[in-house]
Amino acid sequence: MTVEIISIGDELLIGQTVNTNAAWIGSQLSLLGGEVEYCTVIRDEEDVIFNSFELAMSRVDVVMVTGGLGPTKDDITKHVLCKFFDSKLVQNEEVLEHVKSFFEKRDREMLDINILQSHVPDKATALFNEFGTAPGMWFDKDGKVLVSMPGIPYEMKAIMLNEVISRLQNKFEINGLYYQTLQTQGMGESYIADRIVDLETEMKDNGISLAYLPSSGGVRLRLSSNKSDRMLQVIESYLLSLEAIFPEYVFGRGQISLPDVVGQLLTKQKKTVGTVESCTGGSVASALTSVAGSSAYFEGSIVSYSKEVKMDLVGVSEHTIIEHGLVSTEVVEEMAINGKKILNTDYCIALSGYAGPSSGLPEDLIGDVCIAIAGNERVLSKKFKFEKDRSRNIRRSVLTVLNLLRCELLKINIEKS
Amino acid sequence: MTVEIISIGDELLIGQTVNTNAAWIGSQLSLLGGEVEYCTVIRDEEDVIFNSFELAMSRVDVVMVTGGLGPTKDDITKHVLCKFFDSKLVQNEEVLEHVKSFFEKRDREMLDINILQSHVPDKATALFNEFGTAPGMWFDKDGKVLVSMPGIPYEMKAIMLNEVISRLQNKFEINGLYYQTLQTQGMGESYIADRIVDLETEMKDNGISLAYLPSSGGVRLRLSSNKSDRMLQVIESYLLSLEAIFPEYVFGRGQISLPDVVGQLLTKQKKTVGTVESCTGGSVASALTSVAGSSAYFEGSIVSYSKEVKMDLVGVSEHTIIEHGLVSTEVVEEMAINGKKILNTDYCIALSGYAGPSSGLPEDLIGDVCIAIAGNERVLSKKFKFEKDRSRNIRRSVLTVLNLLRCELLKINIEKS
Repeated sequence: MTVEIISIGDELLIGQTVNTNAAWIGSQLSLLGGEVEYCTVIRDEEDVIFNSFELAMSRVDVVMVTGGLGPTKDDITKHVLCKFFDSKLVQNEEVLEHVKSFFEKRDREMLDINILQSHVPDKATALFNEFGTAPGMWFDKDGKVLVSMPGIPYEMKAIMLNEVISRLQNKFEINGLYYQTLQTQGMGESYIADRIVDLETEMKDNGISLAYLPSSGGVRLRLSSNKSDRMLQVIESYLLSLEAIFPEYVFGRGQISLPDVVGQLLTKQKKTVGTVESCTGGSVASALTSVAGSSAYFEGSIVSYSKEVKMDLVGVSEHTIIEHGLVSTEVVEEMAINGKKILNTDYCIALSGYAGPSSGLPEDLIGDVCIAIAGNERVLSKKFKFEKDRSRNIRRSVLTVLNLLRCELLKINIEKS
Repeated sequence: MTVEIISIGDELLIGQTVNTNAAWIGSQLSLLGGEVEYCTVIRDEEDVIFNSFELAMSRVDVVMVTGGLGPTKDDITKHVLCKFFDSKLVQNEEVLEHVKSFFEKRDREMLDINILQSHVPDKATALFNEFGTAPGMWFDKDGKVLVSMPGIPYEMKAIMLNEVISRLQNKFEINGLYYQTLQTQGMGESYIADRIVDLETEMKDNGISLAYLPSSGGVRLRLSSNKSDRMLQVIESYLLSLEAIFPEYVFGRGQISLPDVVGQLLTKQKKTVGTVESCTGGSVASALTSVAGSSAYFEGSIVSYSKEVKMDLVGVSEHTIIEHGLVSTEVVEEMAINGKKILNTDYCIALSGYAGPSSGLPEDLIGDVCIAIAGNERVLSKKFKFEKDRSRNIRRSVLTVLNLLRCELLKINIEKS
């Protein structure tokens, strides 16, 4: 089952919206065993849409289209679909009922343009849109499929999960790529490559391709092969080897996030955590609480952004600040130790740093971040040199401290790093 | 100057990486007056890359390529470029010097695979990569241009800003689209459309197209036209009309973020702010401090996730909690009033809600969020019904409370909303 994803919308081309839909659809269909070969973004123009449908239907089995189905005047996808499939719009009573009850439930008035959304091409199967008023549409033609869905992410996702995936599984015999991903934090692409030169060659000889996927968060390592029970085991053995080589950097598999991993460890060990943050401004707390069920281990935080809050609320001594500076291992150790008492937790994370950009500070201080973790057994602190860019700096600080906490929870020795 | 963006990499197709590069390049070239007509994502395969170069060079003036230039073995773009432009790799001394000093500065060992990155096709102009070792490449052919850049976002961005944009301006006479965007928070697409039916028709008659760009954060309204001094003024007058119709919802223009807008108002009015957060877990503080210079107005926060922290550190009375429940306007009012004193600020934001998913709670409570803002003159509190999905719930809570603070700072009456 080969796939092309077509995303319609000027806002994607001019970069006002990032195409997260295509990424999500791609990941879902890959997991299913589909091979996503192309993803194309085009303008909301009749000819361009028509030609793209034609090209896509000629080169893949399944064409997934998003966008251009809203109630407002700038959306034309439905009309192009009618033309392309030689179909005409008819009122769909089921969809109309849904649209009516959609507005009733929300106690909002239904408008005339909303009624138009119940008009569906007569050659399409309407796909129920749980969270919105524009239905998805499924077209069959010459053994191939075109699916059209709204561009609003949560509407599209519900249609995919509830309506599209099972239909695709029924129609196509799917046996695509098998892949697994390791997530790492704290080491660069070429450093990894250098440490595993021989292993990489060996994997290649065994039919496994290794891809390095760097991002600002860390490098992901993807091992992929054709799908078979044997390859599943071979890949598993290489995943174990890689995890053993880099225990302090590899934090998980697949799409799991570092806050998820840390949350699972805290839950399992029945430990609690809190944070005292300066430069990260609450971002570590926000990351920890992004996980459903985090109230089981997360107690609370103090964001001590100003010197006054550091001293008055967290009780950092003025002497330590004057002696060592606001960004020092001594200050974050006090923040962590005091925060652990105030928030009454097993672990307390503390950070202080110069996130940038420079405002009167010497330029070379930007990127300095001190981190401490106070636990029941010891207090760990380290000084890092991160980036000059504010948001990357904050992001790296958050990931670094969460990975440090992971290593503490697993008793992995990171002193050598 | 018509443009196609080609992004190379399986990780984009299978959705392991979201294509933020294409969005950023699209926005930069649109601002420059380029017309981005296609964005294509393809696999890291020689034939596919070659054919995509051919198609793109036949239908647009400028082809922007990202990805496939890393030091590791899975990257083949440079070899395809050699084939496509009938060129051969030669060592570039300038690039080699840069790569050497890159590793020296970071006190890291230079590896053999890093030296290969200084090999550049002899028909290309090497473009300096400030933050990495793989240079960008500029090819001219028959009046058209192909630019190849690494896929790591910050490397690509620096190459674009320092090397590519000025070269494109020199080569092409650019006079593209003029557009302006209004950002709104708190109202739906069809609600807006219904309120401005006549205005929208009038704009269309005056050569302006209006696009609705909904996202989970809010709907952006984009007005665009051909570029001319007159249209610039016409668009400006419609922007003012829209701002006057929806003062409580329109928070800014262009790419400005709500935290930026709130930060500018606080700075101008010399006011300070803090937060006491429960369900948002520090995300409001994190949003406020995402702005460079936020230390001028942001003092700090308490994330009172557990009931104990709410009572012991913030001083919410047990009586209020028992009487009204943890998610009540009474509790958030106490959180805001006490937080204002503890953090010593002019404004204090407080939130408490059920972010979901349900864990023993009645399903219909999920999405209830109470918000309070304590200021020097009054305390405002409201109860909202948001989403069932945890992350969207948190995001909407953050945006809603920041917009409420904006309205308080501007003394916009929101009682009617």
